[in-house]
Amino acid sequence: MKISFLAIGDELTGGRVQDANGKYLADKLSLFGLDMKFMMMAGDNEEDMVQAFDFLAQTSDAIVISGGLGPTPDDLTIEVFARYSGRELVFDAATMERIKARFSMRGIEMPQTNRKQAMIPAGARIIDNPAGTAPGIEAEFKGRRWFFLPGVPREFRKMTNDAIMPRLSELSSQQKAVVSKTLRIYGIPESAIAERLQKINFDPVLKIAYLPEFPEISLRLSAGLPDKSRAEQIVSQAAELAKAQLSEYVFSDDDEPLELVVGKLLRANKMTLVTAESCTGGLVAKRITDIAGSSDYFLGGFIAYANQLKIKELEVNEQMLAQKSAVSEEVAVAMAKGARKRTGADLAISITGIAGPTGGTPEKPVGTVYMAVEDGKGVWKQKFQFVPWGREVVRSLTAETALEIIRRRILGLRMPGEKW
Amino acid sequence: MKISFLAIGDELTGGRVQDANGKYLADKLSLFGLDMKFMMMAGDNEEDMVQAFDFLAQTSDAIVISGGLGPTPDDLTIEVFARYSGRELVFDAATMERIKARFSMRGIEMPQTNRKQAMIPAGARIIDNPAGTAPGIEAEFKGRRWFFLPGVPREFRKMTNDAIMPRLSELSSQQKAVVSKTLRIYGIPESAIAERLQKINFDPVLKIAYLPEFPEISLRLSAGLPDKSRAEQIVSQAAELAKAQLSEYVFSDDDEPLELVVGKLLRANKMTLVTAESCTGGLVAKRITDIAGSSDYFLGGFIAYANQLKIKELEVNEQMLAQKSAVSEEVAVAMAKGARKRTGADLAISITGIAGPTGGTPEKPVGTVYMAVEDGKGVWKQKFQFVPWGREVVRSLTAETALEIIRRRILGLRMPGEKW
Repeated sequence: MKISFLAIGDELTGGRVQDANGKYLADKLSLFGLDMKFMMMAGDNEEDMVQAFDFLAQTSDAIVISGGLGPTPDDLTIEVFARYSGRELVFDAATMERIKARFSMRGIEMPQTNRKQAMIPAGARIIDNPAGTAPGIEAEFKGRRWFFLPGVPREFRKMTNDAIMPRLSELSSQQKAVVSKTLRIYGIPESAIAERLQKINFDPVLKIAYLPEFPEISLRLSAGLPDKSRAEQIVSQAAELAKAQLSEYVFSDDDEPLELVVGKLLRANKMTLVTAESCTGGLVAKRITDIAGSSDYFLGGFIAYANQLKIKELEVNEQMLAQKSAVSEEVAVAMAKGARKRTGADLAISITGIAGPTGGTPEKPVGTVYMAVEDGKGVWKQKFQFVPWGREVVRSLTAETALEIIRRRILGLRMPGEKW
Repeated sequence: MKISFLAIGDELTGGRVQDANGKYLADKLSLFGLDMKFMMMAGDNEEDMVQAFDFLAQTSDAIVISGGLGPTPDDLTIEVFARYSGRELVFDAATMERIKARFSMRGIEMPQTNRKQAMIPAGARIIDNPAGTAPGIEAEFKGRRWFFLPGVPREFRKMTNDAIMPRLSELSSQQKAVVSKTLRIYGIPESAIAERLQKINFDPVLKIAYLPEFPEISLRLSAGLPDKSRAEQIVSQAAELAKAQLSEYVFSDDDEPLELVVGKLLRANKMTLVTAESCTGGLVAKRITDIAGSSDYFLGGFIAYANQLKIKELEVNEQMLAQKSAVSEEVAVAMAKGARKRTGADLAISITGIAGPTGGTPEKPVGTVYMAVEDGKGVWKQKFQFVPWGREVVRSLTAETALEIIRRRILGLRMPGEKW
């Protein structure tokens, strides 16, 4: 069964509001093993709505429409659909009573404009809206199923879960179970991942989707089959094969963010962490502490932006700093050593570099970053040259790499080199 | 001119990724006085793409398409369009060289799969992509203008600004000059803003859009008229009237982020800043250092997550901490004093609180935060009770409020109270 979605509202085509209902429905459909064909948005005007209705009637079996069911004059969806499908609008007394009851529950008299919401296209079925005034509507026209829901996300979601998903499952008599697994990957480009995966003979049922989310790439492996345990087997086999090919670049096979993976490793190894950041200005610590419970392993951090803080708080030698400059391997090492010494953390990571857009030199252009780790087993250090695509990109690559370094260091994996 | 947008990608119709490019383009169009007709999403398959192409060719004059330009086998957009429009794909040597150069800049050899990105439909014009490998493409077919851009938001945005908007303006020969001004606001709900603005008699040409971007609200005032200077006059008058009504809640009338406003104030007043963060874990410092050149006024910060760091690095009295607990007014004050004393910064701000989801108590539930400022003119301190809508919300409200406190303190404005 081909299912499409249409959101109606000038606020959407005007760029003021981001539609969230389409993604919500698409996600639910995929969990039920159903496919979203088209997602569309159109403004509050009859011509555009009718063009969209025509297109969706030609290409889809079921159409879920959100928005334009409110009481104000710019809410046209039901009126336009009634004309489009050649139906009368019929006053529905039960709906009117329900709307009135909602208002009186709040101690307010119903404004007359809300009367409009009790006008239902003849022959349509009413879908209960437990969270608002506008009822949902289900109708058949041109051999297609049409569902109309309010655009308010809270109402749309509730009605999608309670009424639309069961109805679509019933109509599609979908028997497939869909199983999926998401690998999260950093440090290898999409094209190189594709090349490595070409070596694998995946089951033909397996679907692979690349989900780039800068600077990471996620790989979603999924299979839909009537036999759920077979689908699970195909997906977990595929995940093992992919992980073997992608080796250390896969940091999670359970769709976990890198800061969570690092946190779990620290906790499992009963290790504590301290950060000493310069150019990332707290971004690494911010990501570490995005994770609830990070106080179990994160002692804290130093943001040594000015040289005086590097010297005073991290005990970086003043003469050495003056001689080597703040962005140098020597200062990175001294920062990591100082942070570990000051706090007694098991692992200290330090970061100093040039985030840009200014401050670069021919020898140390924007994107030059030095990092060091001191963890009692010795010092690891590396210079990086990140792509100079702006301050935000350099900082984001630097922070992601810092987390990845902690992960690899704890696991004893091959550490990254300069080109990354 | 009717302009529509199509995003292509299984990750969109599969509900895994929210398209952001459509809203971005729609917003830009409205700023240029142009209208978005349809926004659509289709998966990576030829049948759906061709159906969408046909529909958009029938209904729109210009079509902007994002996604499916990558090097992997599921990136089909250009190939499908070439077949659809009956064109050959021609190898473009200059594009290939540009892609190779991007890789060699990073010291990586170009994977063979990227060769695909240099295959261009015959007769199409190449749109430079300064931020990635896939070039954009402009073509004419069926009397319509077709623009193909990469789906990566960073690349899509850059190319939309640099190439697509000027081109669409030129093609539409739009005669209206649209002038706009965006006020950025924090600390007052949308409904209260609307109430205050009702007192103003705005010029009927003026359009007002509320752009909530949690935790801020932006107010975009715009006017489109053939006479540009008249439009400018209307918008700047409206901005002055709105600012007078909204007083201290407006932190920028030039669409500037709060961290930039704070940075400019620090620089103008030749002041230096130090941060002492606990529950925000570096988020405030991260935001301050998002701004290029922040090293001119930001000395650095302490992330005193563990109590031992509060005691050792910020000189918080150990007995007092044990008695009052880490989340207390006394500890916030001691942290600010300690940070200022240690670094000699002109202004120190401290933050200690309960971000959740655990750690709350009946007296100090999740969302309880204490902040203090020490700036040589004395100590300011305040308890806040933020809405406990999850760790991310609490941290984001806390960081935004911390920045707002620095702004108000420097400007001598009324400081925020507990309810915020």
